[in-house]
Amino acid sequence: MEKVFTVTLQGGKTTDVFFADSIKDLSSKLSSYGLNALWVFDTNTAPLFKNLPPNRIVLESGEKSKNWKSIERIISAALDFHLARDSYFIAFGGGVVCDMTALASSLYMRGTKLILVPTTLLCMVDASVGGKTAIDYAGAKNLIGTFNPAQDVLISSDVLRTLSESEYISGLGEVLKHAILSDNEDLYNFLVNNKDKVLNRDRATVTEMVKLSIAVKNNYIERDPEEKKGIRSALNLGHTFAHALESITHFSGISHGKAVAWGCGRAFEASYELGLIDEAFYKKVSSLFEMYPFDMSYRVGRGEWLDFQEAIGKDKKRMSGNVKFVLIEGFGKPVLKPLDMKLVQRIVIASPRIK
Amino acid sequence: MEKVFTVTLQGGKTTDVFFADSIKDLSSKLSSYGLNALWVFDTNTAPLFKNLPPNRIVLESGEKSKNWKSIERIISAALDFHLARDSYFIAFGGGVVCDMTALASSLYMRGTKLILVPTTLLCMVDASVGGKTAIDYAGAKNLIGTFNPAQDVLISSDVLRTLSESEYISGLGEVLKHAILSDNEDLYNFLVNNKDKVLNRDRATVTEMVKLSIAVKNNYIERDPEEKKGIRSALNLGHTFAHALESITHFSGISHGKAVAWGCGRAFEASYELGLIDEAFYKKVSSLFEMYPFDMSYRVGRGEWLDFQEAIGKDKKRMSGNVKFVLIEGFGKPVLKPLDMKLVQRIVIASPRIK
Repeated sequence: MEKVFTVTLQGGKTTDVFFADSIKDLSSKLSSYGLNALWVFDTNTAPLFKNLPPNRIVLESGEKSKNWKSIERIISAALDFHLARDSYFIAFGGGVVCDMTALASSLYMRGTKLILVPTTLLCMVDASVGGKTAIDYAGAKNLIGTFNPAQDVLISSDVLRTLSESEYISGLGEVLKHAILSDNEDLYNFLVNNKDKVLNRDRATVTEMVKLSIAVKNNYIERDPEEKKGIRSALNLGHTFAHALESITHFSGISHGKAVAWGCGRAFEASYELGLIDEAFYKKVSSLFEMYPFDMSYRVGRGEWLDFQEAIGKDKKRMSGNVKFVLIEGFGKPVLKPLDMKLVQRIVIASPRIK
Repeated sequence: MEKVFTVTLQGGKTTDVFFADSIKDLSSKLSSYGLNALWVFDTNTAPLFKNLPPNRIVLESGEKSKNWKSIERIISAALDFHLARDSYFIAFGGGVVCDMTALASSLYMRGTKLILVPTTLLCMVDASVGGKTAIDYAGAKNLIGTFNPAQDVLISSDVLRTLSESEYISGLGEVLKHAILSDNEDLYNFLVNNKDKVLNRDRATVTEMVKLSIAVKNNYIERDPEEKKGIRSALNLGHTFAHALESITHFSGISHGKAVAWGCGRAFEASYELGLIDEAFYKKVSSLFEMYPFDMSYRVGRGEWLDFQEAIGKDKKRMSGNVKFVLIEGFGKPVLKPLDMKLVQRIVIASPRIK
């Protein structure tokens, strides 16, 4: 496998990000970790293997299993297999499996070695690099977690072939967000010029797109690994809107990436309304999202507004003080600002004032 | 309060260790953290306060409550009080309260600020400085935890006045261990020359003893914060013997510090048997422990040996490979070595071959 990035994160720990040429290439790298390892799959990813390694645990797939019970299952398995602190925990799955394996790895005997093999586009470009681990608690997403960067992240576009269309599009939502957060237009132009290949999951195209996307993320997380300086939080572009939308639809009506894409549209509109960007730039960035299968014209019903507003307030608790929205002043120029709730109401309920 | 140490630990994070002149001095420092805080007590330490702060939780005291249920109680309390990532978690108690508050602090929203106020001698000289957090799981002590150094540790000898004799002596076990691990004889001589004042808990004497003891520990943890280089693990002098003894007595027959003192005696004997130290040095270090109320002549019954041996094997799992015992070659000269089980059996069952 080719080592493409070495990302320096919390406490100077580094994550090496490798890209595989083939499934064989990936398998050969995986076998290099030896037998002193616990493999964590979910019910979606376990069937991808003909011969599962013996030291394994298979978790239920889905957000519902992202809880302490699953962490206990991982830790109990490690105990059963007599694994010590110098063992590897190897996650093979999407964000839920990777976040939980990473958390269990940081907790078991105060820390084992961690390898992540993301199997969804969303996890490749978002959860796998950056060291955030998590479970949900008391209805709050990712409330409990640690910072624990993986030693290696292994990416293979081949594993995306079996991904559902909906999950693939969800991942693209975060990729498009990264295109706006990049301080050059390489990813933006790549997405505009390769739309069909991207949507058809052309191997080389997807690999290049993931590389460009991770490079953007790295630029934020390396400068602010523990999200304390207001830099890493720019990666939440679109997310305050998205989380509120996901909350009022009870996390079942819309995928995370689609919600993020929609939230980015709302952030662009707010940025335009505050005079941070001009009409030409607003249209330029909006058009990228409209090229891809994202419903940017979706509006929250008037009867849903109070729930939406309350859901935004829940984000507030996590930040102590006012909710700050990530807005933009240009490519790679995010700004954090509080927004007047009247403005928020207008841009999530009414049609944009510019067409 | 006087800042006496700044300890550099995991990922360059630092812990400031303060010593209070009086209870008033301690209270004034505590009030400087403001209202954005969760206070964690246990049923032993809560009664020490006339007016408990409103944002508080009181856990059941004792090792039995050192589990995930308690961590959930701390995290739920933080949620109930609408605390954000920038809040303080302030632990007021012994090792169990401090270890659990520190773990909850590292997990809640991926990390809040942490203040530890150790109220036992054992916690002052052992658990509070060094960043180890933990709960027990599946019968394994401290199996689940993180490295999360406190921002501040606040030490006041005044809080030791109400400590039971047995708990105070338990803390002394770790202090005496540190005297041997020090590369000078200051702490050894201090303990020899001030025995009565130490046992009477004379304020200034105890403060000086705690400072000397923490200084020894710092020298090991700063060089190897995550216990990966075989340096920090020297602090386990006496502990492999002690853990096995605690295990066969079901953690109820003997205090931790008394078990550690006994374990140190066994480690000195093994060091002498292997020719690492001479008879004069063996007698010099053993006599310190015999001066204080530690039963160094205690022996494991022949019928208990198999259980004892099995308990040692459980330590093995945590280290992957042979159990390495911490032995000594002189003051501040620990060495890690596997021991022949026949030798271990003889020195825990039979009387020492030197008197």
